[in-house]
Amino acid sequence: MKIAVYGYGNLGRGVELAAAASDDVQLVGVFTRRAPETVTPLLSGTKVFPAQEVFSHKDEIDVLIICGGSATDLPHMTPMLAEHFHVVDSFDTHAAIPEQFARVDAAAKKENHLALMSAGWDPGLFSLARLYATAILPGSKDYTFWGRGVSQGHSDAIRRIEGVKDARQYTVPIEKALEAVRSGETPEFTPREKHLRECYVVAEEGADTARIEREIKTMPNYFAEYDTQVHFISQEELNKNHSGIPHGGSVICTGKTGKNAEHNQLVEFKLKLDSNPEFTASVLLACARAVNRMQARGRSGCITMMDVAPADLSPLSGEELRRSLL
Amino acid sequence: MKIAVYGYGNLGRGVELAAAASDDVQLVGVFTRRAPETVTPLLSGTKVFPAQEVFSHKDEIDVLIICGGSATDLPHMTPMLAEHFHVVDSFDTHAAIPEQFARVDAAAKKENHLALMSAGWDPGLFSLARLYATAILPGSKDYTFWGRGVSQGHSDAIRRIEGVKDARQYTVPIEKALEAVRSGETPEFTPREKHLRECYVVAEEGADTARIEREIKTMPNYFAEYDTQVHFISQEELNKNHSGIPHGGSVICTGKTGKNAEHNQLVEFKLKLDSNPEFTASVLLACARAVNRMQARGRSGCITMMDVAPADLSPLSGEELRRSLL
Repeated sequence: MKIAVYGYGNLGRGVELAAAASDDVQLVGVFTRRAPETVTPLLSGTKVFPAQEVFSHKDEIDVLIICGGSATDLPHMTPMLAEHFHVVDSFDTHAAIPEQFARVDAAAKKENHLALMSAGWDPGLFSLARLYATAILPGSKDYTFWGRGVSQGHSDAIRRIEGVKDARQYTVPIEKALEAVRSGETPEFTPREKHLRECYVVAEEGADTARIEREIKTMPNYFAEYDTQVHFISQEELNKNHSGIPHGGSVICTGKTGKNAEHNQLVEFKLKLDSNPEFTASVLLACARAVNRMQARGRSGCITMMDVAPADLSPLSGEELRRSLL
Repeated sequence: MKIAVYGYGNLGRGVELAAAASDDVQLVGVFTRRAPETVTPLLSGTKVFPAQEVFSHKDEIDVLIICGGSATDLPHMTPMLAEHFHVVDSFDTHAAIPEQFARVDAAAKKENHLALMSAGWDPGLFSLARLYATAILPGSKDYTFWGRGVSQGHSDAIRRIEGVKDARQYTVPIEKALEAVRSGETPEFTPREKHLRECYVVAEEGADTARIEREIKTMPNYFAEYDTQVHFISQEELNKNHSGIPHGGSVICTGKTGKNAEHNQLVEFKLKLDSNPEFTASVLLACARAVNRMQARGRSGCITMMDVAPADLSPLSGEELRRSLL
């Protein structure tokens, strides 16, 4: 299978590495909106092309993996590219998914292309965990906890405050809430009861740290609804201890079976990721494999991971899978 | 969707309850090899028929859920029934799966029926957890831990020992091994290092308990390869504290990503079940829903849960799933 990467940030670099780790995948190249001569790929064999040239490589690319941002890139990028390629993206603005699905579906169908949107882990594997558990246990209740991990959006929000030089925000699940759900309870949580926000902030020389802390803690939508811890540290300390992009979390679903609903049944799916973008990229690559197979069987339009038979994600044959993993 | 249950033991009763809990499912009845008048169904509305009459109800049944045992029933029962019905079974003899798959596939294809075999949690959901994780993380290593839960096979083995009146065996994962795997290590375990076997035994009056304990602990394949604890208790205590059929376990997969494989990525799927047969039955019912949809799209032959798109398991539409769970 020949794939290409469109958009070369953290996620695109992750796909580059994932392709190199997969024997059945060949990377045609990465397409970037920056001047290609200013971009050094992670791996020496990777070709770098300007984004607008992607159409002239149409015949070489089985599946194009789109690695743009959900806020401003993917809403127009995925429909535009799905007219010309089989594509995979990681669109993760949950509330806008139905609208984007319709746009991508219409675009892909024009020339019988297949587009898999919202791949990754949430949306993605976490969605599947919620789906499997609730399909099996009617009337069950599912909870999603995120972290401990870096939230890029919250880190950016802190960096926009006057006097802040750099910042890193960790989303931390509240252990007490996790334990309550794991014990079979089905409480209704406020945001504050489920997650804590832990901020590491580098202030500019002479900045008013009391004001910065207050501005963080009272920021609506981002921090005001949570218990927020603010730690001022040096740039050196931030670089040394907080340069990674870890993430993860748990989907926990509890249901009841039995004539008198006397049996608790608990399903948990958990991720602990040292690198969020590299893991997400690995999911995108497996999804590209499924897209390549499904389009060969005549499937077109927009799909999500919910529409993909798990066997299609694997390089192994059905026979090998049944023998080794079933 | 109209379903029927073939074989009315613990698993069949679980399907009866699962069908009652699902608004989109109607239970035509249960088919039993016992004399129907001797069988009292769990729910008052459930009809009980003799097994051989199943063929005369062919037109009323969309999917037949076969609830026989893997050792002696399913090897012949599933191919026989797949000639006449769309079916689901829970065949769980891992080593015999390829052979059984070929048999069921040939039988189902004769009249374009669809048969989903080996549904449940292992094989089943645990197989999917292994498949998703290894497809996403090439070169990763997966571990399956079972328990704490009742093993029917091991309990039966103890009951066959002279002087044993009753027994219950729990398979218990070794916490130290679980923690090693969760920390990202990839050790090779002996059986003894992964699981412990905990036995509760009711001895007959005057029986030689020292001999019984020795016979259990040295029984090849079942106990000799494990650290085994034997506790002699009264029948009353067994009935009071060990009458449930709980089970569960964890599939843990650890892989590495990064230019220098510097990032650990951990995926864990965990079940904690108060009732093993009721949960397994709930999986079978969700699979029956998928079989009903897939056969309507023209699919025939033998499949497993690996071949089922998750969305097909749910009563919700694709649109509802994307809006509520993606």
